[in-house]
Amino acid sequence: MSDAETEGRGRRGRGGRGAGGGGRAARQASRSGGAKAFKPYISRGIGYFEPFNEEHLATIEYNADTVLQEIGIEFRDDPETLEIWKEAGADVQGERVRFERGMLRQIIQKTAPSVITQHARNPARTVKIGEGNSVLVPAYGSPFIRNLDEGRRYATIEDFRNFVKLAYMSPGLHHSGGTVCEPVDLPVNKRHLDMNLTHMTLSDKPFMGSVTAPERAQDTVDMCKILFGDEFVDQNCVVINLINANSPMIFDDTMLGALKVYARNNQACVISPFILSGAMSPVTVAGTLTQIFAEAQAGMALTQLVRPGAPVVFGTFASSISMQSGAPTFGTPEPSLVLYGAGQLARRLGVPFRSGGGLNASKTPDAQAAYEAANTLQTAALGGVNFMLHTAGWCEGGLAMSYEKFVMDADQAAMMGRLLEGPDMSENGQAMDALREVGPGNHFLGCAHTQANFENAFYRSPLADNNSFEQWESEGSKTMEERANEYYKKLLNQYEAPAIDEGVKEALEEYVAKKKESMPDANY
Amino acid sequence: MSDAETEGRGRRGRGGRGAGGGGRAARQASRSGGAKAFKPYISRGIGYFEPFNEEHLATIEYNADTVLQEIGIEFRDDPETLEIWKEAGADVQGERVRFERGMLRQIIQKTAPSVITQHARNPARTVKIGEGNSVLVPAYGSPFIRNLDEGRRYATIEDFRNFVKLAYMSPGLHHSGGTVCEPVDLPVNKRHLDMNLTHMTLSDKPFMGSVTAPERAQDTVDMCKILFGDEFVDQNCVVINLINANSPMIFDDTMLGALKVYARNNQACVISPFILSGAMSPVTVAGTLTQIFAEAQAGMALTQLVRPGAPVVFGTFASSISMQSGAPTFGTPEPSLVLYGAGQLARRLGVPFRSGGGLNASKTPDAQAAYEAANTLQTAALGGVNFMLHTAGWCEGGLAMSYEKFVMDADQAAMMGRLLEGPDMSENGQAMDALREVGPGNHFLGCAHTQANFENAFYRSPLADNNSFEQWESEGSKTMEERANEYYKKLLNQYEAPAIDEGVKEALEEYVAKKKESMPDANY
Repeated sequence: MSDAETEGRGRRGRGGRGAGGGGRAARQASRSGGAKAFKPYISRGIGYFEPFNEEHLATIEYNADTVLQEIGIEFRDDPETLEIWKEAGADVQGERVRFERGMLRQIIQKTAPSVITQHARNPARTVKIGEGNSVLVPAYGSPFIRNLDEGRRYATIEDFRNFVKLAYMSPGLHHSGGTVCEPVDLPVNKRHLDMNLTHMTLSDKPFMGSVTAPERAQDTVDMCKILFGDEFVDQNCVVINLINANSPMIFDDTMLGALKVYARNNQACVISPFILSGAMSPVTVAGTLTQIFAEAQAGMALTQLVRPGAPVVFGTFASSISMQSGAPTFGTPEPSLVLYGAGQLARRLGVPFRSGGGLNASKTPDAQAAYEAANTLQTAALGGVNFMLHTAGWCEGGLAMSYEKFVMDADQAAMMGRLLEGPDMSENGQAMDALREVGPGNHFLGCAHTQANFENAFYRSPLADNNSFEQWESEGSKTMEERANEYYKKLLNQYEAPAIDEGVKEALEEYVAKKKESMPDANY
Repeated sequence: MSDAETEGRGRRGRGGRGAGGGGRAARQASRSGGAKAFKPYISRGIGYFEPFNEEHLATIEYNADTVLQEIGIEFRDDPETLEIWKEAGADVQGERVRFERGMLRQIIQKTAPSVITQHARNPARTVKIGEGNSVLVPAYGSPFIRNLDEGRRYATIEDFRNFVKLAYMSPGLHHSGGTVCEPVDLPVNKRHLDMNLTHMTLSDKPFMGSVTAPERAQDTVDMCKILFGDEFVDQNCVVINLINANSPMIFDDTMLGALKVYARNNQACVISPFILSGAMSPVTVAGTLTQIFAEAQAGMALTQLVRPGAPVVFGTFASSISMQSGAPTFGTPEPSLVLYGAGQLARRLGVPFRSGGGLNASKTPDAQAAYEAANTLQTAALGGVNFMLHTAGWCEGGLAMSYEKFVMDADQAAMMGRLLEGPDMSENGQAMDALREVGPGNHFLGCAHTQANFENAFYRSPLADNNSFEQWESEGSKTMEERANEYYKKLLNQYEAPAIDEGVKEALEEYVAKKKESMPDANY
């Protein structure tokens, strides 16, 4: 066992310091007007919105089985995966694999866990993904960033670090995310090292790993072993990873390679058909759901064949396209119905469910961005998404990460946490004493019950301006975007890194340095 | 029977011309990118979101009965109402009235209808309010308007007419509303005449009447009789009216006077406790719901005592306040829970339910306005609001009506119509042929199923910009607010009034002119 591994494991034993860092951030966020005491994830106190009935769901399940049996799924350029399917009894012809009715469901239900505990290096930040728990995660994958000062430009590793810091400081976000933006100033084949290092050192929330090549996935696992210890990583989920299907009905060797690395190492895969309905799936809600369910089952079952019991999540990313221009659209009714349906199918299957939070097509954090993001977030929250990617920052169909929208969305995320707690029906919540004390025609502002409860009674947004028109005008008539611009800078100025064992940090930095030296820069 | 009355009734018999006017507007809206064929109201194809369980609801019902029995409700400056309560067996002491457990529920359930048909002068626009039906209605009551050209200023009758035109042209809005803005350029005691005349002549959608004095309510009923005919009005609901409680636990003589006029004439009252939680109700969700349910039952039961079977709606308007400044806040989690709970209570009681749509505290139609409005609209839609006031235009906590936000919200309203229809589970909706035709790795854009369905497959927003960044930039980098500014002006330019019988119109104008002559201008 190397020193680094010892340090990594030792680190977990000294949670106090890490938790101290987290506590400081939570207090800061609370002072800036956030939610109540930090909760590492949402544990919902209320039910789901479920617009599909039993007959609808049975029809989609039946149709998905028909797709898997008749049409099948292609697994491209990956003989090992085809071999795995053959051994499992699937019908493999060339790269096309067909499955008997119910075969994939059976494989998944036999070993896939219904809830995943993803460990954070600070145990107080460890999350549960699945069942009634929701983890809200920053947006993922934008090559551009946007802010009010600079407009839109390519993202850099400095931006990446900033978004990791902002996520760390946002009580409504439970996760550090993955590629919070693409650091395009770094070579493609080395970016993942700096991204991993950033998540591991500048935050103590859980994070996502690299999936752009199997060896980058392996780097992620190896760095996790430095941080958490070899044995701990083999027995526990410490990183979660986004495996997209190439819809329709294809998995490619890049994604399959990453999937196998993570599953073999007992780390979580989110199997996500990436769908723009009308282009990559049928133009209807039920047809899209059918395809998503077929594709997701194929990827999920594969993880269980690679390592039975490996953590896996049923993912969806579904939007519509404009049938005039082909451009993707967000926050509209049809993708909302797809999300609700996919959540119901995931719960029937008994696996955790991933979908998107604050999706939108707007180029700036204006009203369009907010309407569409709020529609998506509400749907994801009420539809029971367990791992809510893209909750904060996403603009322009995912092409740009907005600093201002990041803090706006994080504010909305914290509200969702409060909503999903549900009503307080305790005696204090019922407030009969207040009603008796005040009576007709008086006000409740000064009554004993209000005095005892006012501090945490209502969610307080740090960004909403609820003042009078006159006061707002006297303060410069600022839009929410302008206030958010000031707010994210204030947060970044207040940022303090969570404590980390220096030995672990050095070992991680050494790993990154050595890896970088071992290969030439490449942009593929 | 007067000529006017004959004309009014005759008018209803010649629906073709009115429908022609409506059809033209619907076609225009459709060309501008609206929804599918105009539907006069939403008939939901999916269920409700119901976060309160049986035990929660029974507790709130019990507590509301306790409030009614122990504390009671005050009916101020209205001896007639106190007399009505005495006759009904309530405990009347001074102006305070107390009710035995279950008494009000029994009165309401005995005669109040579960669904109201509100007739429009164009039968194709007649709406159903209650059960699985939702009617989306413009905002109500702002003294100011805002647009991008002028900023914020006092509203005029010209603005009022503009909003009535915009509502008429919005396929997502089913109703012309009431005081869509306060025409403050007209004397207070005569405004209602011009407002009624505008709704009756510039639109053929259903509308709301005046409640600011009993005699103004009577004017509304009398004008309705000109439009619809005496007998028709006595037997059918043709106007719906907003009766606010003076929370906590007070009804005043103005509102009671209007309530009695409308109920006696068989016209609909929306009994709405107007609540800023923490000031006018306890600082908790359950306490606020208890008070709302007590107050609303008192008002609803009164309508049934005045005229058994009179149409009545359980209304709520609940927001929170900032416990720092006392300012109202909107789109936050606690009022959402109140709305969901109130909807569940209304359905258990068996009466139609009213709440708000696009509420927000923002001074401009920026991201704050949109986040808060979308949160409110989603809650209202999923919570089963039957009469959704304030769906379009509301800004600044109701103080200002925004032209730009009006068309943005109307767009969102149309999306809600699509969402609540639910999924199409027909064979065409299941799209198995498309999946078979396309198969792995191809796209669905050109397939036969897509070609047959693309026109109505997805909701098309006339305001969302889904184009590339480069195209958006080349078109002037416009925010949604700027696009909405152009769009509402285009709509107003395209406006054509729906056909109306000239005789009826003249009779209405004559009524207004005579009434105005009969009294001096007054600003109270």
